[in-house]
Amino acid sequence: GNTATLTISCPDRPGIVAAVSQFLHRHGANIIHSDQHSTDPHALESGGSTFFMRMEFHLGGLDQTGDAFAAAFARDVAGPLNMDWHLSYAARPKRMALLVSRYDHCFLDLLWRKRRGELNVEIPLVISNHEDLRRDAEMFGLPFHVVPVTRENKPRAEAEQVRLMREAGVDFAVLARYMQILSGNFLQAFGRPVINIHHSFLPAFIGANPYRAAFTRGVKLIGATSHYVTEDLDAGPIIAQDVVPVTHRDTPESLVRVGRDVERQVLARAVKAHVEDRVLVHGNKTVVF
Amino acid sequence: GNTATLTISCPDRPGIVAAVSQFLHRHGANIIHSDQHSTDPHALESGGSTFFMRMEFHLGGLDQTGDAFAAAFARDVAGPLNMDWHLSYAARPKRMALLVSRYDHCFLDLLWRKRRGELNVEIPLVISNHEDLRRDAEMFGLPFHVVPVTRENKPRAEAEQVRLMREAGVDFAVLARYMQILSGNFLQAFGRPVINIHHSFLPAFIGANPYRAAFTRGVKLIGATSHYVTEDLDAGPIIAQDVVPVTHRDTPESLVRVGRDVERQVLARAVKAHVEDRVLVHGNKTVVF
Amino acid sequence: GNTATLTISCPDRPGIVAAVSQFLHRHGANIIHSDQHSTDPHALESGGSTFFMRMEFHLGGLDQTGDAFAAAFARDVAGPLNMDWHLSYAARPKRMALLVSRYDHCFLDLLWRKRRGELNVEIPLVISNHEDLRRDAEMFGLPFHVVPVTRENKPRAEAEQVRLMREAGVDFAVLARYMQILSGNFLQAFGRPVINIHHSFLPAFIGANPYRAAFTRGVKLIGATSHYVTEDLDAGPIIAQDVVPVTHRDTPESLVRVGRDVERQVLARAVKAHVEDRVLVHGNKTVVF
Amino acid sequence: GNTATLTISCPDRPGIVAAVSQFLHRHGANIIHSDQHSTDPHALESGGSTFFMRMEFHLGGLDQTGDAFAAAFARDVAGPLNMDWHLSYAARPKRMALLVSRYDHCFLDLLWRKRRGELNVEIPLVISNHEDLRRDAEMFGLPFHVVPVTRENKPRAEAEQVRLMREAGVDFAVLARYMQILSGNFLQAFGRPVINIHHSFLPAFIGANPYRAAFTRGVKLIGATSHYVTEDLDAGPIIAQDVVPVTHRDTPESLVRVGRDVERQVLARAVKAHVEDRVLVHGNKTVVF
Repeated sequence: GNTATLTISCPDRPGIVAAVSQFLHRHGANIIHSDQHSTDPHALESGGSTFFMRMEFHLGGLDQTGDAFAAAFARDVAGPLNMDWHLSYAARPKRMALLVSRYDHCFLDLLWRKRRGELNVEIPLVISNHEDLRRDAEMFGLPFHVVPVTRENKPRAEAEQVRLMREAGVDFAVLARYMQILSGNFLQAFGRPVINIHHSFLPAFIGANPYRAAFTRGVKLIGATSHYVTEDLDAGPIIAQDVVPVTHRDTPESLVRVGRDVERQVLARAVKAHVEDRVLVHGNKTVVF
Repeated sequence: GNTATLTISCPDRPGIVAAVSQFLHRHGANIIHSDQHSTDPHALESGGSTFFMRMEFHLGGLDQTGDAFAAAFARDVAGPLNMDWHLSYAARPKRMALLVSRYDHCFLDLLWRKRRGELNVEIPLVISNHEDLRRDAEMFGLPFHVVPVTRENKPRAEAEQVRLMREAGVDFAVLARYMQILSGNFLQAFGRPVINIHHSFLPAFIGANPYRAAFTRGVKLIGATSHYVTEDLDAGPIIAQDVVPVTHRDTPESLVRVGRDVERQVLARAVKAHVEDRVLVHGNKTVVF
Repeated sequence: GNTATLTISCPDRPGIVAAVSQFLHRHGANIIHSDQHSTDPHALESGGSTFFMRMEFHLGGLDQTGDAFAAAFARDVAGPLNMDWHLSYAARPKRMALLVSRYDHCFLDLLWRKRRGELNVEIPLVISNHEDLRRDAEMFGLPFHVVPVTRENKPRAEAEQVRLMREAGVDFAVLARYMQILSGNFLQAFGRPVINIHHSFLPAFIGANPYRAAFTRGVKLIGATSHYVTEDLDAGPIIAQDVVPVTHRDTPESLVRVGRDVERQVLARAVKAHVEDRVLVHGNKTVVF
Repeated sequence: GNTATLTISCPDRPGIVAAVSQFLHRHGANIIHSDQHSTDPHALESGGSTFFMRMEFHLGGLDQTGDAFAAAFARDVAGPLNMDWHLSYAARPKRMALLVSRYDHCFLDLLWRKRRGELNVEIPLVISNHEDLRRDAEMFGLPFHVVPVTRENKPRAEAEQVRLMREAGVDFAVLARYMQILSGNFLQAFGRPVINIHHSFLPAFIGANPYRAAFTRGVKLIGATSHYVTEDLDAGPIIAQDVVPVTHRDTPESLVRVGRDVERQVLARAVKAHVEDRVLVHGNKTVVF
């Protein structure tokens, strides 16, 4: 409906909540949900704490575009308190690009959740390095672009991917078991958040073939981790992770099968949190409200 | 340390957060944690929503006893906004009575957690209808009172229990697998919260022998529920519950054994939440921050 | 591949494992997996125990149709030991009918799993009382039959459903959130297993609107239960169940959303277990190997 | 009661179950529980599969000491089939040594479980490098030996620990948060299984301070792993592991607190499995029946 979400991070100090809530109250915004976090409240005096806040509110008496509201907030609150902040409107859904290869489970799960109304996103395009999932994409009415990637053409292929996404006005990208490592160039050129799903409970089993590695090590649980992509492989800020128990009866093949269910659940949880502005990055960690 | 916790419930309306946070800021209180909840934010205009809040703060520039602070809060904020509110100080731990019978697992778990510093409580007394756990209580240095309960003497026994607890200045009582049903008279005479642990995932298997009933029904998970005691058996506001998977291999005896681990975890979680003023009752439900 | 599964239930007595394993060994069958269960091994002498077994084996030197093998087993082992038994061949997948209404989540989840090779079934038909899911069914190449059900036409509608399923040679039916209660007549006329998914952790919240009831009761977890359908509503033998934690923040609507994920996981687990002959019914309970 | 447990591992081949079950049947042993596992049943012909079995049975008509029974089994079955095997009697509980330092949670949890009858063990001694837990040990009537360990005296200290355990006829040792790394010499001289609890979901966070490392990495779950000790730090065969969710609200201190509950549960599960002969080691992995 007619709601907006404000996220804030800033150096912690007394009076932030008072300042923000007064401002919203004065502008006729009714708070629906509010969450806050101080990284180290006991270090507040010494300046060692960072403050995070997420407020979801009704745009009651507000001008709907929000421009004047945003300008006033910048001037009266965010500037004086040295805030990083972001304001988004439910009426303007985020635009999500999906990058896929051949596995369908995470891909279909996200498409189905969007269809169900669980994810307030638009999906202007799907990009793949293979043809396999074209029919699924098209069944959901989505443009499907194949950009083959080889060792030789990788820089050119990545440039093409970034061009497609920027032309489509994409706000963030999701690697739904996309089987290529993105280069630093890609990340810089794209310049927006990229969410990945890794099929292990990181930091265990970084890199290729984590289910095989889990089988070899004889662990009693396997997992999945969704994180923002950085230049360090599988080392970006973790958004969500989960595990399932396994036993000596499991084979590498059954781990793959069981793992699919965890992967899609964890990725969906992370994407939903991102879409609803619940994830605030703090260094290499996240605050998830 | 030198912290206090303020809990609030009141009719929802715009400006509550602003009013409370301004008040705290003006009185030099630095907020450490803050949580809030509106039961139905979209019904705010129509008066159909109730607002809950929990704020934990440093008593920075405050007078330590807090009396003046509390009086000012009552006058300036709580009164005008029609609040139910409670203020407690970390330096003044809640006083908890334990009622037990013969099972030791929940009892020992709570005593050990207190010893570990996990529970900020004082335990002025333990009351039992049996002698069995006297040695355990005494090992932890706790006064142990045996009040036998029979069908005939129940009113007198309950009166004695209440007298013991009130003389000891008890703030709340925990039934750590106490195997007697408390009468409405007891609850009224005691007049303070009583927390129970029931060995099923309520509302399934209300009443006696839930593990036997679970075995007979052939469920694939068993659980435990901690709730505030009301006059309706096993029907009070639920604070915490959890389950564990079981299989056809389980016998009524193994369910009892497996269940013990869930019972003690769930009860400990509920007691800790209560002790830290994280549980706000709303009709027959709870808000657990 | 070339494997078969033998399931057995019989009065427990010494020597059953020896008899079965000797028979298989003599007929050149190599055991791949074997599970067994005695309901009360300590009551074996008194005849109070029932024995269950599931053996999966390679049809090494066997004649492939298995007719002679089955006849020999009946004569040499099953008859003398008074066994209920069943033999199925991986090369002959079970035929599953899906009954649906308007919810797509359980339905699509089963179709995806079949497509991915997780479920060794054939799906000769889908029956619905609404048109809504026709397009989804047809995208998977499945015949979709609409049989509207009203209070007046219910006996005739059920007769039509049974006729469709029997003509299609269906081995079992799955109610993938089919929103009609099946009559005893239906169950008798169909005469094969019917698997349902109920959206609560039974025996809590039997009947209609369990999420609403869970919200009203204020439980801290919600769940789903898959069971064989009997004439008693939501009271048949439970195959699988699971729960997820919820909080005071959840609304009836969010419970429905969160619940969908549990429902489809639990139903898929139950269907897979049934398809692989892992579920043996024992009175109103199940053994799930 | 009057039961025994037989565990077997051997090269997989057809007819093993038949041979073992026939032998038991012939000797009047009634099987109570039976579990088996082939590491790769499809590689049975090529010799690439290993077979594991655990059988629990009543010693009905057997001579109670079991010597003749064991000799016959060795001669008739184990020898011809090239088995590693072990036979243990419920009437002869395993003797467990506990090694502790200063943390009490795993230690007390095991003592409570033994007192409650959950663990069929004798505990002839407790060894610590600190005095702290003496009173707890003595309250349970257990001999408490302090063997201080420094960098300089470590070889001598370990020799003393091994001497104490061997004199006490110990069958296996449990490191209940014992904060010293055991040398290869210790393991060889002791020559019996040693079970450790590591406070992370291995292979993540091997070595010291895993909770601090988990905090720094920003994981969304923490865990514990119980494993047999080998000369490679935290790399021995895993018996049990589990995790709990954590959030951005957790501090290194709260991770330690939350972790204690997982540690004691996981260690108790592993010790119980070992005590009941449910754990069979296979290279660096385990089969847990």
